[in-house]
Amino acid sequence: MKIKTAIIGGSGYGGSELLRILLLHPNTEIKFVTANEQAGKKVCEVHRNLYGITDLEFISAPDNAVEVDDVDVVFFALPHGQALKLIPQLRRGIKAIDLSGDFRLENGDLHNKFYKTEFSGDLQKRFVYGLSETNKDEIKAADLIANPGCFATATLLALSPVIKELGNTGRIIVDAKTGSSGSGIKPAANTHHPQRTNSFYAYKPFSHQHVPEIEQHLKKIGDLHNDLIFMTHSLPVSRGIFVSAYVELTKEYGQEELENIFSEFYKDSYFVRLVKGSPDINWVKNTNFCDISLHVNGKELVVFSAIDNLVKGAAGQAVQNMNLMYALDETTGLVFTGSNP
Amino acid sequence: MKIKTAIIGGSGYGGSELLRILLLHPNTEIKFVTANEQAGKKVCEVHRNLYGITDLEFISAPDNAVEVDDVDVVFFALPHGQALKLIPQLRRGIKAIDLSGDFRLENGDLHNKFYKTEFSGDLQKRFVYGLSETNKDEIKAADLIANPGCFATATLLALSPVIKELGNTGRIIVDAKTGSSGSGIKPAANTHHPQRTNSFYAYKPFSHQHVPEIEQHLKKIGDLHNDLIFMTHSLPVSRGIFVSAYVELTKEYGQEELENIFSEFYKDSYFVRLVKGSPDINWVKNTNFCDISLHVNGKELVVFSAIDNLVKGAAGQAVQNMNLMYALDETTGLVFTGSNP
Amino acid sequence: MKIKTAIIGGSGYGGSELLRILLLHPNTEIKFVTANEQAGKKVCEVHRNLYGITDLEFISAPDNAVEVDDVDVVFFALPHGQALKLIPQLRRGIKAIDLSGDFRLENGDLHNKFYKTEFSGDLQKRFVYGLSETNKDEIKAADLIANPGCFATATLLALSPVIKELGNTGRIIVDAKTGSSGSGIKPAANTHHPQRTNSFYAYKPFSHQHVPEIEQHLKKIGDLHNDLIFMTHSLPVSRGIFVSAYVELTKEYGQEELENIFSEFYKDSYFVRLVKGSPDINWVKNTNFCDISLHVNGKELVVFSAIDNLVKGAAGQAVQNMNLMYALDETTGLVFTGSNP
Amino acid sequence: MKIKTAIIGGSGYGGSELLRILLLHPNTEIKFVTANEQAGKKVCEVHRNLYGITDLEFISAPDNAVEVDDVDVVFFALPHGQALKLIPQLRRGIKAIDLSGDFRLENGDLHNKFYKTEFSGDLQKRFVYGLSETNKDEIKAADLIANPGCFATATLLALSPVIKELGNTGRIIVDAKTGSSGSGIKPAANTHHPQRTNSFYAYKPFSHQHVPEIEQHLKKIGDLHNDLIFMTHSLPVSRGIFVSAYVELTKEYGQEELENIFSEFYKDSYFVRLVKGSPDINWVKNTNFCDISLHVNGKELVVFSAIDNLVKGAAGQAVQNMNLMYALDETTGLVFTGSNP
Repeated sequence: MKIKTAIIGGSGYGGSELLRILLLHPNTEIKFVTANEQAGKKVCEVHRNLYGITDLEFISAPDNAVEVDDVDVVFFALPHGQALKLIPQLRRGIKAIDLSGDFRLENGDLHNKFYKTEFSGDLQKRFVYGLSETNKDEIKAADLIANPGCFATATLLALSPVIKELGNTGRIIVDAKTGSSGSGIKPAANTHHPQRTNSFYAYKPFSHQHVPEIEQHLKKIGDLHNDLIFMTHSLPVSRGIFVSAYVELTKEYGQEELENIFSEFYKDSYFVRLVKGSPDINWVKNTNFCDISLHVNGKELVVFSAIDNLVKGAAGQAVQNMNLMYALDETTGLVFTGSNP
Repeated sequence: MKIKTAIIGGSGYGGSELLRILLLHPNTEIKFVTANEQAGKKVCEVHRNLYGITDLEFISAPDNAVEVDDVDVVFFALPHGQALKLIPQLRRGIKAIDLSGDFRLENGDLHNKFYKTEFSGDLQKRFVYGLSETNKDEIKAADLIANPGCFATATLLALSPVIKELGNTGRIIVDAKTGSSGSGIKPAANTHHPQRTNSFYAYKPFSHQHVPEIEQHLKKIGDLHNDLIFMTHSLPVSRGIFVSAYVELTKEYGQEELENIFSEFYKDSYFVRLVKGSPDINWVKNTNFCDISLHVNGKELVVFSAIDNLVKGAAGQAVQNMNLMYALDETTGLVFTGSNP
Repeated sequence: MKIKTAIIGGSGYGGSELLRILLLHPNTEIKFVTANEQAGKKVCEVHRNLYGITDLEFISAPDNAVEVDDVDVVFFALPHGQALKLIPQLRRGIKAIDLSGDFRLENGDLHNKFYKTEFSGDLQKRFVYGLSETNKDEIKAADLIANPGCFATATLLALSPVIKELGNTGRIIVDAKTGSSGSGIKPAANTHHPQRTNSFYAYKPFSHQHVPEIEQHLKKIGDLHNDLIFMTHSLPVSRGIFVSAYVELTKEYGQEELENIFSEFYKDSYFVRLVKGSPDINWVKNTNFCDISLHVNGKELVVFSAIDNLVKGAAGQAVQNMNLMYALDETTGLVFTGSNP
Repeated sequence: MKIKTAIIGGSGYGGSELLRILLLHPNTEIKFVTANEQAGKKVCEVHRNLYGITDLEFISAPDNAVEVDDVDVVFFALPHGQALKLIPQLRRGIKAIDLSGDFRLENGDLHNKFYKTEFSGDLQKRFVYGLSETNKDEIKAADLIANPGCFATATLLALSPVIKELGNTGRIIVDAKTGSSGSGIKPAANTHHPQRTNSFYAYKPFSHQHVPEIEQHLKKIGDLHNDLIFMTHSLPVSRGIFVSAYVELTKEYGQEELENIFSEFYKDSYFVRLVKGSPDINWVKNTNFCDISLHVNGKELVVFSAIDNLVKGAAGQAVQNMNLMYALDETTGLVFTGSNP
């Protein structure tokens, strides 16, 4: 018995990665994939990596719930503000995993401030935040998943053991860097190759929409005594997020002591790899892994984490959540080894 | 006494490079630079490399010739089809150098086939083709210059000594590769960084608009017995064109013999550097140099050439032509050494 | 029942890719992997993409055949000249697939000229050339495989239908470009990042060691009337080979006619994808696919092909050959979809 | 009258950039350039960007002071630990500018801890720290200059106005990123193109040798109450350093107020450009500029700075210091505009 899936919004990078993963997933079949502007085109003409892999065609988004009758779970990979309008129409019993920011924030004011799209109100309360490693039990029982943002995923996996296990901390600064695919499939000035290829710059100082998402989740799993200082930067690579999280500790810890805390915290988490030295986005690209290392110096701690923004930061984690919802091993269909070099 | 220059179309890469060069040129001043969509903005807000270098502001394109009264030479760096409409309005006595394809082709049918823009007719006859190294005398006497295309420049500098000095040849195949800046400043799918950065592909097979331009010029300087086979490819770098030109010889030549022919041909050409081994776009980037090497094997000859598409392939050659037109040393304001690495 | 495999020379890129593929192959187990300089180290410390995937450790190369008793097939991923000494020691009955150039050339003089390593003499005759698509039947029956070179693979897949089906052709020029991983894992001046990242250049004009390999194979499947003109260039990407093969035809063919010839030729070849427009190395990276397109203009034909040099050009094709030798579906363990972007 | 210069150690990137700048500097001539391993070779064979620009040949390092008799100023661009042995041999009256770390640190213990090379002792006291913008008067009067490190330059230009003008601050965290040319011209595993091109990672956590250099200088110009937390990361570009400096303020400041403080501080500094938004390494590459922006949010301040590590971070600043020592305009020979894109 295969899980019947559908993808709403299959023409962007999130949808493309969902297709790549679900097409080879041993326990799923794809009933349909929508992309209004590409309707009628073969999927493999748009995502040419899938040429020879699938004969699926894009369809227009269904107008009503009837057409998704024969589906178990729907993935939404739409721009912010669109899933909000479609999810209420879903037939009762159909599960949904949303990759956008529509249902991540519990606080309507924060949502409005950071997203400028409508807040979902009560519907939001029915969503479970899909950070697979820390919310496993809730995800297993969920029907609706708000899949975490890419920066939020990398940051939360770096900081969750700290906030949960070390209790009080001082100031936390997160210096985050992302590859260009994080900006999506639509060409724009900041992703124009001639300039981007030799470029590195910061953007959205003190105002990235993932800040409230990160703070909301950290406050649930422990005490966050200070506002997070969070800064995003743009890397001249296609894929990858690297986070350097600087934590002021309230007492001194030994290196080994902290490593043990992280090891214990992630002992059941296949996709979190605790590494020596530094993680490198090169070693996680095209995979669902999050590589983490930490280094302590007196009361100063830095935690580094690296993920592929489109896999663990989006489509891979979405499928990991689906696996959990259907009581499959969470790694099913997700063991890509990355490549060297 | 400084040459009074103006730039029509200063917001693209061609215009940007003209500004970079002319602002530091010892014998020029810039009277104005136009960019309709950026009118009123400071040049250095658009081309941030020029921050601190100039306080110039973009203006709208002047409606009539009056406003260019106080100008000696006007550079046109507009999309194909636009200079055509403006140049006839120029006050008599003002020189013009056009970086577009509007006036390169003498044959109206070929122009219409390859450019899909209006042909300039008789006006074209007044233009001199601005390949500085081979047309020096005509350029010195010219008022109107059709600046060569970037691929055409790299190809013609590789092939001119062959066609001029070796007489008859057999089949010639030119395999050309360009960096992404050749596509201009406007973001598009083929220059979207996430994909372009790991990409290499061919485009416009057998149909690039520089083919008739190359053939027209080769036929002027010698005998071209066969249609040129010319193929363009896209490189994942910002700047640089590399040409591999394969020539079937009608008799055997020695390596040294051919090197001597090239040395003699370019003995007065500062910007053509004959190198050993292979040229590399890395060594010509940001410069007006064209590096060339050749290798012969029996009756098979390959000539490699490398230029910066925006400098020797556009703005640098335009200024080189201006230098010639004003009896300056052709290298004035153009001796950039490139960088290592 | 799993095929028992061993890898001799597991610390380079070829060995790394073999590990990546074989570790997830449903029908193989890896008995051991050697790397003299890394002996005792965990594989995942050297190839960090495999962290969490395997606990294998590198061992020193076995001194004698005894230690490989429990193995069905041995992959050799050593520098040229080394497999030659080890393969004669293999216990009778063990199959071997060699990724080096030691056994590719049948002609000892050519081998000595191009490789400067010892020629294997009679032993060479026992080897089958492992271009999976064209030599399928021989490979199925083989014990010893000489796995093709990366440039040779891309070139032969582009030209085989031409040479086999079109009969006589005129001059053929192959302009080939490779990513930096083709130079191997050992740092060198030509792969030094500061320079390579903005670089494109030609190398080994008229003298690449894959030329005799390509000619040898083409002459087996058809008539090759002219020496191949073959030129290699270096791309500033990590992975990928792109070949532009220019063929002078002896009569005119239609576009569709030639496309049909290629379709027919590759109708049973899952890993060859005939595409429209141009292939792009971006769409085949990390996969075993070879994407091919062709364009005809009168008597001029160009065929483009793109592969990942380390997969279809090395380890992937080696495993494809192993699949054939063991009567598995040739795609087993090799259906990687690539990624977008 | 031209300044007679010599370069000791001209084969690396620092020496290469010194050559590029000094060859076109209107007030200098190069008497000789040494490179022991390249002695006898033409400079332009090693640094191929200089082909056609100079006929200089490398010589071996002179054994004694006699040979440098006819020189006014010597630039040392040697690996750490070598200038130390040569500078004491200089004839009295010859000025020296050292690009290595040999003479930067005043504290011998810190020198020994971070550099593992001999400490210069009393000789160090005769050196002036060559951060041109903040030490202008001392540099003008100096004979011996310790040219700052690349990370130190970018960090100090970002933090000097803060430490000098704001008085007390809280914790300061510097997250710094560098291009691959910072590792020098010698190929190594961390600069191997196949891997570096898709890579981003941290290195030397809490232990980079520029930390004591930065702290030493900040303590001279103001109060530094806390140890600096400084972290270095590697970018997949050739050139550029980007610094994100997070400063905990002791009281709230307005954005404009802080911008005015920086403007005032740098009002006579041509090479520091205060920009809006974020600096970008793309806009400073190949130039001597340092672009800086700042953003304040309550008591949180972030300062971004971007330089070219080989120009403002090494050779450019060295020449800027020479200009100051010889009472030239500090910009002489250093107004490179960078390029777009």
